[in-house]
Amino acid sequence: MLRHSVILKLKPSLGADEQRAFFKAVDSLATLPNVQKFEVLKQISPKNKFEYGISMEFATQEHYDFYTNHPEHEAFIQDFWLTSVDDFLEIDYQKISY
Amino acid sequence: MLRHSVILKLKPSLGADEQRAFFKAVDSLATLPNVQKFEVLKQISPKNKFEYGISMEFATQEHYDFYTNHPEHEAFIQDFWLTSVDDFLEIDYQKISY
Repeated sequence: MLRHSVILKLKPSLGADEQRAFFKAVDSLATLPNVQKFEVLKQISPKNKFEYGISMEFATQEHYDFYTNHPEHEAFIQDFWLTSVDDFLEIDYQKISY
Repeated sequence: MLRHSVILKLKPSLGADEQRAFFKAVDSLATLPNVQKFEVLKQISPKNKFEYGISMEFATQEHYDFYTNHPEHEAFIQDFWLTSVDDFLEIDYQKISY
């Protein structure tokens, strides 16, 4: 299991329509191959500056790489992510054994 | 649903025994009242500096507050967190509707 997540802050200049279009485009990522447990979340801790979180799981690293390199994911980055997101942090988790 | 999570980096000076004691203490938090879906995870993205993640869910804000203020949680912070953790970031999520 590999859980890929990102916390993000949208550009303050983003209008309501643009924000809706951004989240619609985010939702469409859930339909890409091998994406599991796709979630869009509101970040509510006042101890960081981020507003939203996106989280998904992949069974293997190969599935994750296939998603990352998928043309629809790359188009999303170009057309929505780069134009809408002010700041972000990627966090990737694996199960731990200790 | 409220998902409380923290990503953290341990102090480089921490020995193997201290690290085991830290994670044993972390695990014991799972037994506190109302804690759901407790997970300890390895953070593997090279795009941030954090090494581990801890994630849990609460049904309500009241359950979360009860956990935060629980004497065993406060003892954990004093006895393990403050002595073992080099840096961290708290992230709290709620389900979103848009």
